[in-house]
Amino acid sequence: MHTTREKKKLLNRVRRIRGQMEAVERALEDENGCADVLQRIAGVRGALNGLMAEVVEDHIQEHVADAELTTEQRSEGAAELIDVVRAYLK
Amino acid sequence: MHTTREKKKLLNRVRRIRGQMEAVERALEDENGCADVLQRIAGVRGALNGLMAEVVEDHIQEHVADAELTTEQRSEGAAELIDVVRAYLK
Amino acid sequence: MHTTREKKKLLNRVRRIRGQMEAVERALEDENGCADVLQRIAGVRGALNGLMAEVVEDHIQEHVADAELTTEQRSEGAAELIDVVRAYLK
Amino acid sequence: MHTTREKKKLLNRVRRIRGQMEAVERALEDENGCADVLQRIAGVRGALNGLMAEVVEDHIQEHVADAELTTEQRSEGAAELIDVVRAYLK
Repeated sequence: MHTTREKKKLLNRVRRIRGQMEAVERALEDENGCADVLQRIAGVRGALNGLMAEVVEDHIQEHVADAELTTEQRSEGAAELIDVVRAYLK
Repeated sequence: MHTTREKKKLLNRVRRIRGQMEAVERALEDENGCADVLQRIAGVRGALNGLMAEVVEDHIQEHVADAELTTEQRSEGAAELIDVVRAYLK
Repeated sequence: MHTTREKKKLLNRVRRIRGQMEAVERALEDENGCADVLQRIAGVRGALNGLMAEVVEDHIQEHVADAELTTEQRSEGAAELIDVVRAYLK
Repeated sequence: MHTTREKKKLLNRVRRIRGQMEAVERALEDENGCADVLQRIAGVRGALNGLMAEVVEDHIQEHVADAELTTEQRSEGAAELIDVVRAYLK
């Protein structure tokens, strides 16, 4: 699905998010205040949105916009993208 | 930008949202409870997301996926779409 | 539900949002590009979030945190607030 | 910050989310399609919103609504809550 370089970038983002979730876990275990915990959760949410934006962007470039795609491949890529947009905005 | 039929559907959505905002205004003027006002605002937000999903979907179909587009038009449509995704998810 | 000053601030926000929705409608009628329309919709969404934040804030101050509330009033205000948080985050 | 029972529930949610992130990582490593990856990310996002809702709810109950709080403690809890609402909705 992705070029090797893209894949590596995405995996790095995923690992960072896993690290952030571990920090949320520690903050709860150590009974840090709610404000601290909520700020960390908001941070994970931001990072997750960034990951999603990057995956969607890759999808657009490789499965919808790429000049080499056949008409059928492009239609399929567009339909998948529209499903994602609808799921996300509903 | 849109077919006449699409344009009409979008304008109907916009007018419904305007009507919902008028109801929010009346709820505030009549000093309805916060719960009522917040529920109405949440309703507008849902309708706005639906409108955005539909405009994005039209954009994908007409400016990125359409088989008649030139490579240049498609690239431009994809770049605009990626800008929207980034703005929305950040 | 709100002090007169608060109510006026909220109504001003609502009227600004109605004006922004009218601009979305004109942009669709004039067949402006998708990018322009989407940017305007994103603007309305931001303004709507600001309105919601302000109504929630007023609710917290007047119906949950206010030192004059009876225990029962405060419980009710907190329950309403929790309903809003759940509806919003689900 | 939380009762032992609440803390355990929150930690269970956090661990489930960490498991979901591992599944996202595997889906990327195994080069599953974008649609699969995006659906998994959307799942994490939903679970994260659920976690946030629960932490906010606990905060409201323990630091804003609790009848045992002093006026000062309640004011502080309300101010923290308002900060969270603003950060989240902006």
